[in-house]
Amino acid sequence: MKEHIRLASRESKGKSIIRIGEVAIGQDLAIIAGPCSIESPEQALTIARAVKAAGANLFRGGAFKPRSSPYSFQGLGLEGLKILEMVRKETGLPTVTEVLDPRDVCWVSEFVDLLQIGARNVQNFSLLKEVGRAGKPVILKRGMYSTLLEWLQSAEYILKEGNPHVVLCERGIRTMETYTRNTLDLSAVPALNELSHLPVVIDPTHGTGRPSLIPAMCLAAIAAGADGIMLEVHHNPAEALSDKDQALLPDQFARLVPKIKTLREMIESWSGTEG
Amino acid sequence: MKEHIRLASRESKGKSIIRIGEVAIGQDLAIIAGPCSIESPEQALTIARAVKAAGANLFRGGAFKPRSSPYSFQGLGLEGLKILEMVRKETGLPTVTEVLDPRDVCWVSEFVDLLQIGARNVQNFSLLKEVGRAGKPVILKRGMYSTLLEWLQSAEYILKEGNPHVVLCERGIRTMETYTRNTLDLSAVPALNELSHLPVVIDPTHGTGRPSLIPAMCLAAIAAGADGIMLEVHHNPAEALSDKDQALLPDQFARLVPKIKTLREMIESWSGTEG
Amino acid sequence: MKEHIRLASRESKGKSIIRIGEVAIGQDLAIIAGPCSIESPEQALTIARAVKAAGANLFRGGAFKPRSSPYSFQGLGLEGLKILEMVRKETGLPTVTEVLDPRDVCWVSEFVDLLQIGARNVQNFSLLKEVGRAGKPVILKRGMYSTLLEWLQSAEYILKEGNPHVVLCERGIRTMETYTRNTLDLSAVPALNELSHLPVVIDPTHGTGRPSLIPAMCLAAIAAGADGIMLEVHHNPAEALSDKDQALLPDQFARLVPKIKTLREMIESWSGTEG
Amino acid sequence: MKEHIRLASRESKGKSIIRIGEVAIGQDLAIIAGPCSIESPEQALTIARAVKAAGANLFRGGAFKPRSSPYSFQGLGLEGLKILEMVRKETGLPTVTEVLDPRDVCWVSEFVDLLQIGARNVQNFSLLKEVGRAGKPVILKRGMYSTLLEWLQSAEYILKEGNPHVVLCERGIRTMETYTRNTLDLSAVPALNELSHLPVVIDPTHGTGRPSLIPAMCLAAIAAGADGIMLEVHHNPAEALSDKDQALLPDQFARLVPKIKTLREMIESWSGTEG
Repeated sequence: MKEHIRLASRESKGKSIIRIGEVAIGQDLAIIAGPCSIESPEQALTIARAVKAAGANLFRGGAFKPRSSPYSFQGLGLEGLKILEMVRKETGLPTVTEVLDPRDVCWVSEFVDLLQIGARNVQNFSLLKEVGRAGKPVILKRGMYSTLLEWLQSAEYILKEGNPHVVLCERGIRTMETYTRNTLDLSAVPALNELSHLPVVIDPTHGTGRPSLIPAMCLAAIAAGADGIMLEVHHNPAEALSDKDQALLPDQFARLVPKIKTLREMIESWSGTEG
Repeated sequence: MKEHIRLASRESKGKSIIRIGEVAIGQDLAIIAGPCSIESPEQALTIARAVKAAGANLFRGGAFKPRSSPYSFQGLGLEGLKILEMVRKETGLPTVTEVLDPRDVCWVSEFVDLLQIGARNVQNFSLLKEVGRAGKPVILKRGMYSTLLEWLQSAEYILKEGNPHVVLCERGIRTMETYTRNTLDLSAVPALNELSHLPVVIDPTHGTGRPSLIPAMCLAAIAAGADGIMLEVHHNPAEALSDKDQALLPDQFARLVPKIKTLREMIESWSGTEG
Repeated sequence: MKEHIRLASRESKGKSIIRIGEVAIGQDLAIIAGPCSIESPEQALTIARAVKAAGANLFRGGAFKPRSSPYSFQGLGLEGLKILEMVRKETGLPTVTEVLDPRDVCWVSEFVDLLQIGARNVQNFSLLKEVGRAGKPVILKRGMYSTLLEWLQSAEYILKEGNPHVVLCERGIRTMETYTRNTLDLSAVPALNELSHLPVVIDPTHGTGRPSLIPAMCLAAIAAGADGIMLEVHHNPAEALSDKDQALLPDQFARLVPKIKTLREMIESWSGTEG
Repeated sequence: MKEHIRLASRESKGKSIIRIGEVAIGQDLAIIAGPCSIESPEQALTIARAVKAAGANLFRGGAFKPRSSPYSFQGLGLEGLKILEMVRKETGLPTVTEVLDPRDVCWVSEFVDLLQIGARNVQNFSLLKEVGRAGKPVILKRGMYSTLLEWLQSAEYILKEGNPHVVLCERGIRTMETYTRNTLDLSAVPALNELSHLPVVIDPTHGTGRPSLIPAMCLAAIAAGADGIMLEVHHNPAEALSDKDQALLPDQFARLVPKIKTLREMIESWSGTEG
């Protein structure tokens, strides 16, 4: 399998740094927060201001939603992208949004700073190649059934097209457990750190599906060596148009961030001493 | 979940019949055979003639291959499609090929009779919608991690765009078992038959990954009530450019088909008697 | 792994025949039927007479029930064994019951003809060794997480103690699917037939958990080459003390058996012709 | 399902403290270390002295080994127990060993301080009941396929027999991932903390199967709120009689412990502040 992981391989280079505005992912701690879906300018701006105040350095929000059912809310589309653009202007936060279709990569790139490939598209090779050609920084989520080596091969598709700006995001795999929405695989963090130079962030919102478990899993992610976290935050989770009742409240997020930062400093002070 | 399965639901109509040339899938037994990848005109024609002689009524062959690694053979593309067109002209067999990109749906439809959506794209909603709009008959494979209800919702995406010509194909799910490539879930056949009106075919080649297990699993599929089987057949599996050593030889296929047909007749003679 | 499968290995001998009274499992078709739990003499005898009349040649019924919860019905114990003894006397059917504790193997063997090791005990090595030493015929169920090679190693524990009378029973593995209780892995039948000489029976009751799917899966099991089936049958499933609403009614069972037998004859007439 | 978790339920009482000698698990951080198998007095004592010096407060070592194959090393049995007794006398460390058979519970309890129920026996209800009756403190590992609610019901079996001294140990579940031996589910820590009052320790050795991943996963476990860790340590892993090449070296363990303790203090200083 090793022969299929070349550009993504740890042997090929030292840790990658992906720069998005003033944030250097892989060096600075990435704290990506925002709602599952962009629902309105007010909703987006309210949440963006709250997460920025609490310490987030990137804003996430979906404009195109990959929903299992065609009858579920599919996102605001272009309107959502315009809201994301406005949020960036108002708050200065760089923005992340998911792209679902290779035909959208080019123009969606005009509106946001970082493209996300979701779990369901981890082996959508047309989309991977298009994002590779676009050259825009990308967050590649793990599929809910991907092995680490398959996931790295998907990253390799992007790198091979000439785009080195890839961040990996673990979001839980599907197992027999039903109490949590997925099973968050934190061993992916040290494993990817020995297999690859790409930064790794953790998404405990989808990984657990339960707000009560998210703070503990954020701390665990940082302790495991993750380069950042990605979280859903909503000021009114019970009314969210997608991933209802799964997001943290801005207050909970604000209490969590300082702990994450303190823990990160401690972990960083230890790194290199293992050798 | 039931509210998300409307057009695909069993309650909405009686068993669907999908007509491809002279074959009425859902009524006639579909025997879909051919190589994993189209490799050359000679290879394709040799195999097509052999499987037709043995009793196949549809010819499969990949022109665009979804490979985990960007360094693996990716298919002949347009050249492969032209070969498929030639095979149809020479043998009269309708053809099936996989489509990976929504931008390809329109023009690929010109070359083949049936479009396949592969396991990795079962939740590639852009592709599903495009295939829905194209109106071309489609085989929708189950994802390696799809629940039955998720899979039916993916079918619903196609139906909702106005394309009623959908055949479902079970090809094994990923489990902890390692002796087989996947675990073929034959209970999907009676389960789908009670949940939906769409025809169901079985792919034991990917379901097991072992030619020695394929004949038994074909018979089991038919006994379970499947509307057909899809098999990889290659005259030189050891030299195949993809799925090496996984295909049946034409001889093995030829010995298997009469048993399948005999068994099908027996099973059909019993249907309706369960009451 | 092959070095750990010696006595169970296909290379070590031809197909095993396990004789239980007049039934030769591995040669005759085993049709094992009865309630999940023995509940009373009347319940057991009613069901036993019905399944015998329908064509069953072995009677199953649990006296010791392995329940996830300590607050669920745990079985009648010794009273259940006495009922099994009575049923055998009244009907002539050999009996099968599960044993959970190595201390029970010796005395439970006095009451029944065949001991069952359940899925949860597939790697209870103390129990496997004890059953091996007892020499009594045994049905070893697959664990809900066992690979085929692990399962065969569990059988090897029994064989190594000197007991060659082992029948394997596939009962479904745990996967992400939720529509069915487990995922019945019928590819285990041809796979075990190439790896081992031990007979293989299929339990679609636990494999699917849905009576509506059981007839199709019984036929599929026989078509795949299984040596028999094991089914829960209850005359009043809604009132059963365990596995409520999962059993077939005696009438459904009676309509199914002739089909199974007819199919078995057809499959047998083909065996050996594969070359 | 809630009605089946009574004595183990969070609602029934505050966090449990399990006292083993001077260690109060659930309050003090449990650091359980030692070899997979006891191999000789010298091996056991060498490792025990090293882990004690490094900060371990409990010593683990297997005398009865549950091995998939009957041809693998099965442990030293009684001889191993005597070595464990000697190690406790020489080092003062309380000892933990696995018990496999209900007949062994009583006399094995004479030799060690804490009994372990392994993953394969998580639903060996005879063994659970016997350990419940013995009253000896017990570490109950999660099965490789257990849901959290099933696991807690297994704990309930022990509690119901009158033994409240139960520690839960997450050791990884079986998934499709192959790079790691299992997938360590750290979300089990906060999940169990909201469902139950029982202490939870984490076993990253079996959870990952790779020494290079263990330090990161120990830190992550503590950050997630675990009450302790259980690790395999061996001075010569390449020659170990079981779990070869999976253990940490004493030196690696010694570098890890101070970080774990420092991290634990930080996490404890935050608890209660979440509100």
